[in-house]
Amino acid sequence: MKIAVLGGDGFCGWPTALHLSDQGHEIHIIDNLSRRWIDTELGVQSLTPMDSIQERCRIWKQESGRTLNFHLLDLANEYQRLRAWLEAHRPDAIIHFAEQRAAPYSMKSDRHKVYTVNNNVNATHNLLTAMVETGIDAHLVHLGTMGVYGYSSVGAPIPEGYLDIEIDTPTGKKEQEILYPTRPGSVYHMTKSLDQILFQFYAQNDGLRITDLHQGIVWGTHTEQTRRHEQLINRFDYDGDYGTVLNRFLIQAAIGYPLTVHGTGGQTRAFIHLQDSVRCIELALKDAPQSGDRVKIFNQMTETHRVRDLAELVAKMTGAEIAWLPNPRKEAAENDLVVENRQFLALGLNPTTLQEGLLDEVVEVARKYAHRIDRKRVPAVSAWTRDIAKRVETDPEGKRLKSAS
Amino acid sequence: MKIAVLGGDGFCGWPTALHLSDQGHEIHIIDNLSRRWIDTELGVQSLTPMDSIQERCRIWKQESGRTLNFHLLDLANEYQRLRAWLEAHRPDAIIHFAEQRAAPYSMKSDRHKVYTVNNNVNATHNLLTAMVETGIDAHLVHLGTMGVYGYSSVGAPIPEGYLDIEIDTPTGKKEQEILYPTRPGSVYHMTKSLDQILFQFYAQNDGLRITDLHQGIVWGTHTEQTRRHEQLINRFDYDGDYGTVLNRFLIQAAIGYPLTVHGTGGQTRAFIHLQDSVRCIELALKDAPQSGDRVKIFNQMTETHRVRDLAELVAKMTGAEIAWLPNPRKEAAENDLVVENRQFLALGLNPTTLQEGLLDEVVEVARKYAHRIDRKRVPAVSAWTRDIAKRVETDPEGKRLKSAS
Repeated sequence: MKIAVLGGDGFCGWPTALHLSDQGHEIHIIDNLSRRWIDTELGVQSLTPMDSIQERCRIWKQESGRTLNFHLLDLANEYQRLRAWLEAHRPDAIIHFAEQRAAPYSMKSDRHKVYTVNNNVNATHNLLTAMVETGIDAHLVHLGTMGVYGYSSVGAPIPEGYLDIEIDTPTGKKEQEILYPTRPGSVYHMTKSLDQILFQFYAQNDGLRITDLHQGIVWGTHTEQTRRHEQLINRFDYDGDYGTVLNRFLIQAAIGYPLTVHGTGGQTRAFIHLQDSVRCIELALKDAPQSGDRVKIFNQMTETHRVRDLAELVAKMTGAEIAWLPNPRKEAAENDLVVENRQFLALGLNPTTLQEGLLDEVVEVARKYAHRIDRKRVPAVSAWTRDIAKRVETDPEGKRLKSAS
Repeated sequence: MKIAVLGGDGFCGWPTALHLSDQGHEIHIIDNLSRRWIDTELGVQSLTPMDSIQERCRIWKQESGRTLNFHLLDLANEYQRLRAWLEAHRPDAIIHFAEQRAAPYSMKSDRHKVYTVNNNVNATHNLLTAMVETGIDAHLVHLGTMGVYGYSSVGAPIPEGYLDIEIDTPTGKKEQEILYPTRPGSVYHMTKSLDQILFQFYAQNDGLRITDLHQGIVWGTHTEQTRRHEQLINRFDYDGDYGTVLNRFLIQAAIGYPLTVHGTGGQTRAFIHLQDSVRCIELALKDAPQSGDRVKIFNQMTETHRVRDLAELVAKMTGAEIAWLPNPRKEAAENDLVVENRQFLALGLNPTTLQEGLLDEVVEVARKYAHRIDRKRVPAVSAWTRDIAKRVETDPEGKRLKSAS
């Protein structure tokens, strides 16, 4: 297949491009390299030393004999170039990672909120419109997030995208299938909730074939392909904006930094290892919907864990201390989360669990590159509201939390 | 109150600005005048001769002694100016009409789709972010549309924004309140569905006080204030993109053009007279939610009618013929629609119905300005998909429809 990987220079996009290239697909990475610019803006860098995308593609060719084509293109701001590219290349599948993907970054300031909405909504919508306009019959696979549901489940497992409800009518109860209701908790998560409505419309009106993957928090850093050469290494974020919770604990443990638990750590989240994430995308590609079908929605996750349990697991494994800090997010202090993921299991996904030694691998990578870490960039400081910002500022080390407990 | 009317130069915005000014409020019209530019783009003009916004404000001052302040500002593209304006003026209420509002225009081409999404989403989101950032405590009243629900009711009345559903959990059924599910049928309607998610987030995260009015199709052209002087006249659209169904029938009847019914005319829609629309906004302003409340949602409509019944009513009243044409939209040929509107009735709305002689008024206005009509611009030609476009092109007069019936 000819596959376009939008955002193929990013944390999930790069290993996906390699994985699919390794399977013999013709891969076209489309990226505006905005994530590298955000590194520059924030003054942080990937824990792992990361080459330019052009250099990475060269190394992959050298190692595997396979070509990765790179196209510098801004989906949100270059509609005409996007359309011309699709017209000329007519891919069979398009994997869409090309969105600003950090909740804390999306909440940093009004500028970041405006950027995230403008970038993410226009990127997705431009793509959908261009697919209709060029008349290509590509299967679109989009990376969504479990976070669209807001982590406030009523105790029932979150189904894979849809819910049957009963509505009282004058002639009795009638069943109706609806998109499982969203309640996003950050501007970033909100944009993925907007994407869902865009997909529903374009599948219904234009018969586009769309799969939306509601992904959990990705942990790990290597895949089979990124291990093949040091210059194929994946990016790996440790900072308070782009670092994700389990990876951050592992890095913190590696550099002797206390594990930063916000609030009670009672937040339950869904997780998936990076290797499983790229495998899920492969499986989703093979299970494409037909034109006229509803959007196919998968929950792309393998386990759920409570944040404080993860901290305790990593503390036990490494001897690290836990720091209980005020929570900069506006969210429930404690939540349960049960998620259905039968579809990927049925397609043959064999989940990598936390118990399988891969936690050590992350700690090893972090130790190897520990000299590249700026410890000042480890705390998560983006606050969800002004009041929370004040509270966090006046009590950065959670002293009140400690004295209360 | 100090009230900002965003989009205050438009079909609903202008009479709302006059109505609220007449009640003694301090009115600030903010508009980028994009609707006038779209007239230029399409080569059509309002049926009624419409002065510049500056001239209209001057005449209103002369007639009423009251000042209408006008600010040229593009919400979607001038975030910093918007924020500075809010900071400086700190309005008590903001009425947000400032979105591209025609479904056919939003479906004309990829350029129009991209414009509509970019303009509408960024306008609404920029406003919300700027309200948070400036810390003003304004009540935001937004004009949404009944069209977000897609007109495919299962037979139950569409409630005012929310639905209680039951979810099966291991410990029994649990009730959950959700936003009534949307299924928009055009890019324009889709943007109003996106707005809903934006409002939900900003009410929840930042305590913004928001009212969303899901409006039906507005008919009529005059209000009490626009009647006071010929230069205060409202804009009035007759073309296939911006003209709305009942007004178009009345104009068509006035100029001896057959009433254009698309498909079977079995589409049922919700309607409201312009005078009631401005009155509803007045009522919504008086019934503001508190910070921390969910978004208050009203169905702003007074009657539902089937399109062919309206055509027959107008035909009977005026002697006009009916032309049965192919439908350029992708929608159900026939639908029922029952809508709850108890909230506005409870607040004192006294609906203007089709039976009250105001149909004649529209026909009179149309006859007076009939010489300004370009008959070639009457047909609705924007098709929802390429296949439909071909079908409409090869059979513009619905000959196959006629021979089939």
